[in-house]
Amino acid sequence: MRYEEMTIEGRNAVLEAFRSGKTVDKLFLLDGCKDGPILSIVREAKKHGTLINYVRKERLDQLSETGKHQGVVAFLAAYHYAEVEDILNLAKEKGEPPFLFLLDNIEDPHNLGAIIRTANLAGAHGVIIPKRRAVGLTATVAKTSAGAINYTPVARVTNLAATIEELKKCGIWFVCADMDGEPMYRLNLTGPIGLVIGNEGEGVSRLVKEKCDFVASIPMKGEIDSLNASVAAGVLAYEIVRQRWNQGH
Amino acid sequence: MRYEEMTIEGRNAVLEAFRSGKTVDKLFLLDGCKDGPILSIVREAKKHGTLINYVRKERLDQLSETGKHQGVVAFLAAYHYAEVEDILNLAKEKGEPPFLFLLDNIEDPHNLGAIIRTANLAGAHGVIIPKRRAVGLTATVAKTSAGAINYTPVARVTNLAATIEELKKCGIWFVCADMDGEPMYRLNLTGPIGLVIGNEGEGVSRLVKEKCDFVASIPMKGEIDSLNASVAAGVLAYEIVRQRWNQGH
Repeated sequence: MRYEEMTIEGRNAVLEAFRSGKTVDKLFLLDGCKDGPILSIVREAKKHGTLINYVRKERLDQLSETGKHQGVVAFLAAYHYAEVEDILNLAKEKGEPPFLFLLDNIEDPHNLGAIIRTANLAGAHGVIIPKRRAVGLTATVAKTSAGAINYTPVARVTNLAATIEELKKCGIWFVCADMDGEPMYRLNLTGPIGLVIGNEGEGVSRLVKEKCDFVASIPMKGEIDSLNASVAAGVLAYEIVRQRWNQGH
Repeated sequence: MRYEEMTIEGRNAVLEAFRSGKTVDKLFLLDGCKDGPILSIVREAKKHGTLINYVRKERLDQLSETGKHQGVVAFLAAYHYAEVEDILNLAKEKGEPPFLFLLDNIEDPHNLGAIIRTANLAGAHGVIIPKRRAVGLTATVAKTSAGAINYTPVARVTNLAATIEELKKCGIWFVCADMDGEPMYRLNLTGPIGLVIGNEGEGVSRLVKEKCDFVASIPMKGEIDSLNASVAAGVLAYEIVRQRWNQGH
């Protein structure tokens, strides 16, 4: 298991961290700030024995990575990445066919955060990202994930194509998004599935695409090229949700 | 079309901007300042429906790039706004049932940009935003829209609820997203439609929601509350695309 230091910023993100049982090492609050959300954070901190540091705005600005601390910055003792196995076990525990997100080099922390948020709400069991050339779990990612990072396991792997190959042995099918694919509505996406989302600029890399069982396209009518990566992930994920929902209704 | 966001400072410059027909997105005036030139600016602002923010000198100093604001700072829109009629005409030209996005106070420029991008690719004919309390067409919005801002018209209106009321007379149905709605898959979204997306934190306002014909919910399975606003817009827009696509296949 790999550990990294982590800064959490913003009221919802910090509150979620406490509530999901994370260990907050240090908590910095804006001196004199006493509104409802801040008082909830203070209560959680006291419950968990976290020392509170009341500081001035300048100090918070210094500590903040995103610049949007909303009067709260927390340092987590550690943040751990999950293992791919943890993700499969989560699916097993829930008695559901595995539903994974695999991100082929997402670079923008806002996109990564929004995608983890989407993965959580779409009922996916985890997110797999590559170790190299991709953004990791930074404070911006945590904040943009709106707390989802505390619930949806994120695993890092050395080689995404090799991981796909391994997971195929567990009976998981892989679908990636690309413009030259089959319209997503025509594909059967109801079984155990890995949804592969490509890099913001270059899409899915050739090696990874070759490993995929399906290439799905999102119908596009406009003048420009492509959807934002996190929007594309959401649209595809919810086509999977819809097809699974239809089976149950 | 122009890309740069412009700050105009000083009495003559701001007055000229109004008189030459530039769109002033936001106007900041020194609180308590009531001399002749300032009153002329106030008159122009009211004539053009520009929101006036009365602020203290410290705030103006902060906003000012030159340090010589003379009590007035104005932000110009980076782009021209369309009229709602232009959007309806675009649908008519294409021979398609109108498909509009209405954004109930989107505040984050990245969200607005991503939503305009989605609107373009989903084949929507335009985006309607309110004048007050929402982000306008800034340089960041233009950049995040990935060029969509050059093709998809964006109109600003004073009162979103009143605009919905007007558009209903043209036979357009309105659907907004909210957690307590009907699952979106169960609704018929194939006709002339306006998709209403709420504010990032507060969702769709009560007055606007009351005007909507349908309330659609996106199924959510996870532990957290809500999708990112631009992802939610994408998921709903593509449910509309899917239903229209099904009709054609």
